[in-house]
Amino acid sequence: MQKKTIRFGEAAVQFYFDGNLRQLKTLADQKRAVVLTDENVFAAHGSKLKGWNTIVLKAGEAFKIQATVDSVITQLIDMGIGRDGMLIGIGGGVITDLTGYIAAIYLRGVAAAFVPTTLLAMVDAAIGGKNGIDVGPYKNMVGTITQPAFILYDHTLLKTLPESEWRSGFAEVIKHAAIKDAPMFRDLESKDPAYFMKKPSALAALVQRNALLKAKVVAADVFESGLRRTLNFGHTLGHALENQYELTHGEAIALGMCYAADLSSELTGFAHTERLENLLQQYGLPTQAQFDNKKVMQVMRGDKKKAGDGVRFILLEKIGKAIVQQVPFEQIEATL
Amino acid sequence: MQKKTIRFGEAAVQFYFDGNLRQLKTLADQKRAVVLTDENVFAAHGSKLKGWNTIVLKAGEAFKIQATVDSVITQLIDMGIGRDGMLIGIGGGVITDLTGYIAAIYLRGVAAAFVPTTLLAMVDAAIGGKNGIDVGPYKNMVGTITQPAFILYDHTLLKTLPESEWRSGFAEVIKHAAIKDAPMFRDLESKDPAYFMKKPSALAALVQRNALLKAKVVAADVFESGLRRTLNFGHTLGHALENQYELTHGEAIALGMCYAADLSSELTGFAHTERLENLLQQYGLPTQAQFDNKKVMQVMRGDKKKAGDGVRFILLEKIGKAIVQQVPFEQIEATL
Repeated sequence: MQKKTIRFGEAAVQFYFDGNLRQLKTLADQKRAVVLTDENVFAAHGSKLKGWNTIVLKAGEAFKIQATVDSVITQLIDMGIGRDGMLIGIGGGVITDLTGYIAAIYLRGVAAAFVPTTLLAMVDAAIGGKNGIDVGPYKNMVGTITQPAFILYDHTLLKTLPESEWRSGFAEVIKHAAIKDAPMFRDLESKDPAYFMKKPSALAALVQRNALLKAKVVAADVFESGLRRTLNFGHTLGHALENQYELTHGEAIALGMCYAADLSSELTGFAHTERLENLLQQYGLPTQAQFDNKKVMQVMRGDKKKAGDGVRFILLEKIGKAIVQQVPFEQIEATL
Repeated sequence: MQKKTIRFGEAAVQFYFDGNLRQLKTLADQKRAVVLTDENVFAAHGSKLKGWNTIVLKAGEAFKIQATVDSVITQLIDMGIGRDGMLIGIGGGVITDLTGYIAAIYLRGVAAAFVPTTLLAMVDAAIGGKNGIDVGPYKNMVGTITQPAFILYDHTLLKTLPESEWRSGFAEVIKHAAIKDAPMFRDLESKDPAYFMKKPSALAALVQRNALLKAKVVAADVFESGLRRTLNFGHTLGHALENQYELTHGEAIALGMCYAADLSSELTGFAHTERLENLLQQYGLPTQAQFDNKKVMQVMRGDKKKAGDGVRFILLEKIGKAIVQQVPFEQIEATL
């Protein structure tokens, strides 16, 4: 287990890389902690959770809603969890978002910790303190920005990950490369998913590189007034698509990135849309889709990143360099 | 209007004393702001709220619950309120608690501001950033600690305040005097509620003294690891009583303070229980009541301040000096 400490404003987060789920009991007190996980994770890894108070939730984004929060809070009260308690989310982004949110509001805040079990959660969702729940078609409409005490990485948990989940994780990895890390972009171009799935050391290095890239971007701008916004590359259209169509998060943001690249070529002269599309395809992600523009525009007008009569859009200037630019809804619609 | 700035950690809060509700439009942007208030306040002061987007809630602690939060969030989404929005709570503690909480979680946080309309909210509830909602019999079980941008004081709003609300406010004023301000305790002993209700300048001075006393205690310990806990004097038993019996907050904490004074005389040698009881009576507050000890103990065992097999209790050493002490449930029950 390799420990790195990253400070986010007043909060310090411990990153335990190359760890193992069984080491969790050396990091948290079983008497005061409650594990939140979902049925899929519990089916695959429940045997490693003996001795922990556990709340097992239904799996899936459809349950990232207030009704789930209400149910967990009732259970925490019944279990007598006090302010010295800790909620440990073991799962993908839905579980880490729910766990972080509930920990932020229960008793006005108890400690949280995460053990991400998907590539997406390892490189993105578990990092940065953003948590929350969906409201109707709007993703993460309610939540807070509150850092966990620690994040424990166990790559062996990925062995049971379905292929669609690998694709979603690679979508965020490609996003990181596109906005901030041109050498990683080129490295990804020279490889493919099978390479990383077969070679644990390469996967571990990729996860750590991405986790630290995201952590450093967030640490420089915890409350998202500047740099952190670039992490939303592909997410403005992506989120508008995700809840309306049967798309995974990775598929939705892959489409969002292609659209943002098109918009970038109009607005910044970005010249590598094709390279981005090719890389996404190489990692099993879609680059084209048919959707109802009117519906999508309607959801986008409700987006959190809305400002006046437009949206703060993340555009690329080149591979590895993103900028934030206010784009009017009219122009967004025209490019769609 | 007299402006004082108090810093709470990273947040700065503007206190506008001796102001007027009509000045609100000089402090916030009517286009981006939404006023949250209740039916009673709106009936009394609605004419001063022309031009503001307004959500009018049902009045009373019974509506300080998740269902109200859900309803407000849906309305904010429908109104298209973005991250540059502001929620302005105009009302008593229930409204400022709800407004602060919703502002803390909507879109992962928008600005909040308060115009307290009760003595209790002016001297206590609106100050310090604690917000939240009740869950079943447990008060403020869910919430955050997030500071508002500003608090606007308008003493003329108190003219329509029912007498029971005056008593609740004086209960917190007496609490402040008991834990932190012996000269104010003596001053209160020499006066009575009628004096303050008839003399606006004396009332304004009392409000400002109490608001700044609370603000300074909180500023020294925003996340309640020490000094701030003393503000809970009378509240541990008080909260356990409040939701189970037909008591106002002031009545409940008056009883809680008498009990805590009794416990103090056992544990710290506090010798002024009778003076405290006399002062509470002078301001129309109860000092004795019959209640079901078992029920009360059951709720207290679920209290947020629970730690191990007891509760961190606030005790007095003398008038103007409070301490925090872990008291086992056994001893609490025996003194009851």
